[in-house]
Amino acid sequence: MSGDQQDKLNILTTLRKKRDGEELSREEIEHFVQGHTRGEISDHQAAAWLMAAHVRGLSRAETAHLTHAMLHSGEQLDLSWLPAKKVDKHSTGGVGDKTSLILAPMVAAGGLNVPMISGRGLGHTGGTLDKLESIAGFRVNLPIDEFTRVLGECGCAMIGQTAEIAPADRKLYQLRHFTSTIDSPPLICASIMSKKLAESIDALVLDVKTGSGAFMKREAEATLLGELMVDTAKRMGVRAVALVTGMDEPLGYNIGNALEVVEVIEALHGGGPQDLVDLTITLGGWMFHLGGRTATVEDGEHLARNLLASGAAADKFRRMIELQGGDPRVVDEPRRLPKAKHQEDILSATSGYVTAMDCELIGVAGVLLGGGRQHESDTVDPAVGIVMQKKLGDPAQRGEALCTVHFNSTERMEAARLIIERNIQVEPTLPTQRVPLIRSVIRDN
Amino acid sequence: MSGDQQDKLNILTTLRKKRDGEELSREEIEHFVQGHTRGEISDHQAAAWLMAAHVRGLSRAETAHLTHAMLHSGEQLDLSWLPAKKVDKHSTGGVGDKTSLILAPMVAAGGLNVPMISGRGLGHTGGTLDKLESIAGFRVNLPIDEFTRVLGECGCAMIGQTAEIAPADRKLYQLRHFTSTIDSPPLICASIMSKKLAESIDALVLDVKTGSGAFMKREAEATLLGELMVDTAKRMGVRAVALVTGMDEPLGYNIGNALEVVEVIEALHGGGPQDLVDLTITLGGWMFHLGGRTATVEDGEHLARNLLASGAAADKFRRMIELQGGDPRVVDEPRRLPKAKHQEDILSATSGYVTAMDCELIGVAGVLLGGGRQHESDTVDPAVGIVMQKKLGDPAQRGEALCTVHFNSTERMEAARLIIERNIQVEPTLPTQRVPLIRSVIRDN
Repeated sequence: MSGDQQDKLNILTTLRKKRDGEELSREEIEHFVQGHTRGEISDHQAAAWLMAAHVRGLSRAETAHLTHAMLHSGEQLDLSWLPAKKVDKHSTGGVGDKTSLILAPMVAAGGLNVPMISGRGLGHTGGTLDKLESIAGFRVNLPIDEFTRVLGECGCAMIGQTAEIAPADRKLYQLRHFTSTIDSPPLICASIMSKKLAESIDALVLDVKTGSGAFMKREAEATLLGELMVDTAKRMGVRAVALVTGMDEPLGYNIGNALEVVEVIEALHGGGPQDLVDLTITLGGWMFHLGGRTATVEDGEHLARNLLASGAAADKFRRMIELQGGDPRVVDEPRRLPKAKHQEDILSATSGYVTAMDCELIGVAGVLLGGGRQHESDTVDPAVGIVMQKKLGDPAQRGEALCTVHFNSTERMEAARLIIERNIQVEPTLPTQRVPLIRSVIRDN
Repeated sequence: MSGDQQDKLNILTTLRKKRDGEELSREEIEHFVQGHTRGEISDHQAAAWLMAAHVRGLSRAETAHLTHAMLHSGEQLDLSWLPAKKVDKHSTGGVGDKTSLILAPMVAAGGLNVPMISGRGLGHTGGTLDKLESIAGFRVNLPIDEFTRVLGECGCAMIGQTAEIAPADRKLYQLRHFTSTIDSPPLICASIMSKKLAESIDALVLDVKTGSGAFMKREAEATLLGELMVDTAKRMGVRAVALVTGMDEPLGYNIGNALEVVEVIEALHGGGPQDLVDLTITLGGWMFHLGGRTATVEDGEHLARNLLASGAAADKFRRMIELQGGDPRVVDEPRRLPKAKHQEDILSATSGYVTAMDCELIGVAGVLLGGGRQHESDTVDPAVGIVMQKKLGDPAQRGEALCTVHFNSTERMEAARLIIERNIQVEPTLPTQRVPLIRSVIRDN
């Protein structure tokens, strides 16, 4: 950048422009992100910027510039020494979504590398790291060199966010929490993509949740977010696809860290709930296809099914657990996972069909049981959770169990019960329209 | 407020609502202002609030709630022991605008009280306090009890902002500077009115400047600001009027602190430039009328003219200067005011008529000479300034003086010259349309 250009970059001008709905240049966005990360632009100014960006929106070009600047605020993994293509999957967060734990070993078993950096549960959604930590000894905080060593040895590795990656996002994400600027598709896109692209992946499959249990309740907003992320990936030379998928009920039956690992193990042994397995196969099919492993998505899905049926995916999971310090015996003996002291059914008060549920509140009930975090510093009880006994559309008789709550505190159980009872609807007739789980596929062409 | 209501007041919800363009309730605005003033709501959240308010705007009701909350963040003067009605005038800031120094003693001479709390010059506009301080010994930082004592003795007193008045405004005003949220009519209204209403006045006359030398360049914005201020005053039981007046050239001839006091003294002795005197008479007429001193504005204007012609206004000025520690002899011997070492004319490069000038830049030239502040901590040179030799519409021959610069530093003079020369237009023909100084009058009915 020339000195003349540098002179023109002034945070007050940038703020004024965004405030008035003008489009910011790459240089203006870089100057903001770099300045804020270095502490030269104050948190007040960043808060005002975030609010202006939330209200006025960001164009696709601005979103890509923001992602690029946030990505380059930190380090990127150097995985060039690994010959296989690197692929990853990211979900915007849902209830009972445990696909990552199946996908990483499955896709590694298929010959690609999966360098997966994930998050913890916050709010009503679960976190991949919390689920992995229900396996005794499993370490999610590997240093980068150990992470890449595990990746090299077994083709997949799963860790948490590190300080080196996208520090700009950490500062801005914190501010967004305190300034009601969380639910902006461009800001969400930049936050997700700056971290995912730091993995130096060749391809990325995005699962954008929509519905009562998703952050983006409306499909139009989820679609916009999917389009922004695919477009941003494309602008940065990464192949990507976004699947907009329904989150009107929990994925699979189990919610809660250890309970979800049980369902993962079932799937890795060729079983598991149909909605969970179908979605996993589709996501895996896209990962194989975009990673260049198969010519078509359908071939990728076929490969995915074989890797689950053959036990190859389960083998990889055992190996990864072992390399990350965990007890691999859980894969064959899931009873080794932590178990809650008590179980109690929540019964249907009427007869009919399960027509709807407030999936976010089911997630909140899981958090109240101790399975998630109300505050970032909370510790998580790996054993508690909810096992759904009915899915949407299932018939339910009066007095029949809608779900089973696994709990360690009666008080917490009662709080969860209050929420669950009110938020699963059983009605005499079933709506004729059923929506498919996968609502749309957004490609990078 | 009930406990239940209190529970619902959450800054994140308030931010979300304003972000999405919803109207905030009185309680939500009070909770924000009180929380921020007490330090319970962070500057980041306040910055985000200001940006949301700037982009989405505030309704008249919201503007009044904000003003009310800011006013009640601090103390209000208790002037109930003074029998006369209290009135004041406020200008949104211009170049060469010295009407306050004439109005305060004139209206006091007419039997009303004028408890005037003013500001310093910042940016291209001058400040009443800086002008007063060009009078040797004049103290603008009186404690409140001394201020009210002066007011009781002579009917007018002029001081600067005190810590007790509207502390919420001080914090928010600072943040607005750093977040590009200055030029929002509702935020300007709340800032001005929270301070003016703390004077416990019965009536307020507002001079909203528009044109090249005003903060609100466009008349529509100035009108909106005027309407908001009049409406806000009415909601709080204060009679108010707003005059939208032109600021396309300096008011009067003189710009600069002591130079402006010279022109004030001329006016107080019955002379002075016509535009300055006409505007002062009109503003004074409204002050007398709204303060209940005269039945009509016209009667008020008549009274105003008489008070200037009779020397009664000049007597009050002498008395106020004396009571505030200044040298009252300047009123009769203006040569006692500080004088710059050098004077130099800026000549017209061509023959024709003065058709336009960039009045803001003329103000900036005055600041560059040392007469104003580039930073809040700058000290001001009372002697320097610019004396216009031509007003808009005047004929100018090539080589004739357009203005005379009074300066103490040749370097600063050269900087000022560069700006002035380029920003006074002399053209062969005069535009036929001339706009009146007073563009519109906004009443509280």
